[in-house]
Amino acid sequence: MSLQFKDEITLWLKNLQHSICSQLEQEDGKSFFSSDEWDRSEGGGGITRIIQDGNVFEKGGVAFSAVHGKTPDFLLNEKEHSVSVDKPNDSTFFATGVSIVIHPANPFVPIIHMNIRYFEMNNGVRWLGGGIDLTPHYINIDDASFFHHSIKKVCDEHHKDYYPKFKKWADDYFFINHRNETRGIGGIFFDRLTAKDDTDFLKLVDFWKSVGETFAPTYLQLVRKNKHTDFTKEHKNWQLLRRGRYVEFNLVYDKGTKFGLETNGRIESILMSLPQFASWQYNYQAKQNSLEEQTLQLLKKDINFLKF
Amino acid sequence: MSLQFKDEITLWLKNLQHSICSQLEQEDGKSFFSSDEWDRSEGGGGITRIIQDGNVFEKGGVAFSAVHGKTPDFLLNEKEHSVSVDKPNDSTFFATGVSIVIHPANPFVPIIHMNIRYFEMNNGVRWLGGGIDLTPHYINIDDASFFHHSIKKVCDEHHKDYYPKFKKWADDYFFINHRNETRGIGGIFFDRLTAKDDTDFLKLVDFWKSVGETFAPTYLQLVRKNKHTDFTKEHKNWQLLRRGRYVEFNLVYDKGTKFGLETNGRIESILMSLPQFASWQYNYQAKQNSLEEQTLQLLKKDINFLKF
Repeated sequence: MSLQFKDEITLWLKNLQHSICSQLEQEDGKSFFSSDEWDRSEGGGGITRIIQDGNVFEKGGVAFSAVHGKTPDFLLNEKEHSVSVDKPNDSTFFATGVSIVIHPANPFVPIIHMNIRYFEMNNGVRWLGGGIDLTPHYINIDDASFFHHSIKKVCDEHHKDYYPKFKKWADDYFFINHRNETRGIGGIFFDRLTAKDDTDFLKLVDFWKSVGETFAPTYLQLVRKNKHTDFTKEHKNWQLLRRGRYVEFNLVYDKGTKFGLETNGRIESILMSLPQFASWQYNYQAKQNSLEEQTLQLLKKDINFLKF
Repeated sequence: MSLQFKDEITLWLKNLQHSICSQLEQEDGKSFFSSDEWDRSEGGGGITRIIQDGNVFEKGGVAFSAVHGKTPDFLLNEKEHSVSVDKPNDSTFFATGVSIVIHPANPFVPIIHMNIRYFEMNNGVRWLGGGIDLTPHYINIDDASFFHHSIKKVCDEHHKDYYPKFKKWADDYFFINHRNETRGIGGIFFDRLTAKDDTDFLKLVDFWKSVGETFAPTYLQLVRKNKHTDFTKEHKNWQLLRRGRYVEFNLVYDKGTKFGLETNGRIESILMSLPQFASWQYNYQAKQNSLEEQTLQLLKKDINFLKF
């Protein structure tokens, strides 16, 4: 199955990238995605698409990559999920995925992140990973509930355990430990999904594809609802502070970013997740009963956003 | 010597903090340093002083701390400089220092960083660390030369090997590996300076104090020279991009920041080094022969700024 599947999944991801960019461009109505094709010297490459200075999207990236080569040592040696390989020197890998981070201009439109990735080695080991999570600058309970219900619906169509399990995983993963706050309202996160036989693996692939396909309709509904909301200088200031926290998470904790920085990845594609403008203010304190304070109170793990 | 010395050095550092803040305030002419005293639950505390929205200084911090308690395991176990301790459970430490990061408003005034620190354990082990380095948004060769000559003069008064050795150390330390560029024009950096007898150790202390004392006169000369330089929106934009790189260095590489984040330090004091505003732009390319390109060409290790 491996060879055809690799090609099929690569094509599907490229089409997904194209479709998402077109829909975001249409929603923006001003800016278009630029396109950078790049090669990886050790094998493979990618297409990084970036939108900047739009009506709606201040800065956003939708990146596709498909890389291959000798399996990196850290993957063969890692403690958590050691991968049994008879002849490490002969081990090769193939990895492909789409990653998205969108920073909107209006502080009432949330930041969104989505990633889906497929990995295989020449010994037959293969897995899927991914997730989608939302980082509102201001948490609107209705929007948070809509987002989690949409994600849960996609999960439930495949397995009733997926949403609770992957929701918890996202809460744990997207956590800014040094601030003791979550990055946003979470969503789902999963990694190393695999199955012994092809039939079961293809069921996982169906789920994984659904996550990719839900990105545009789910996010665009939130964009349309909020993109015309009036905002003040104070709202914008808060947005920049929240983006500062986003930068902190991505540079200090995000595994994909760390992996990219440590393995000499294409730096502009890795750091496309960083916002055009961000801010840090010493010891910022939200005013009592303000929208900012309400948001901070909801940046916690294990909140059930379905109940609202 | 230990007890009196600890008290003397702590008092000296507190006075240095006070003196530096006063001189910066006078230069700024508008904003004053706020003062936050904080306690560390495990022992000790600090005074974090912050200036914001000044005429000259957009955001800056001058932090003093003096902490003590049980020696952290990572210090007892670390590979590079293993510290021989007979009874690790009985090991206690004392550490004190002053840290400074100043982000000026005008893009032609450089960012500066200075840190001096003293560490001792109850078994008699003790050392000094520190450094001072400059991060101009635009590298002016005369200013870079003045800065390095000033630092060299301080070093040479104590030992002719200090400047070359500690200059190289700064080049290696203040390096943004994933960008393949230095953070700025460097300066000096040193750690774990120690001596067997008190006489020699006190000579090191004299050098270390000189580093702290050179901060204000050296930096203020550069501030005065450049603070009235006219700048455009493009210069400001470049400043924000360079500050983005500063954020990348501090969150990804800086050992003090990492140590603070991992050991549950006072987060607002640790991250006072981050600028009020920073920016990331996808795949920014400096124009040929521009000031920006000239600066990028000088963000390299092992440049001899003395020769200009």
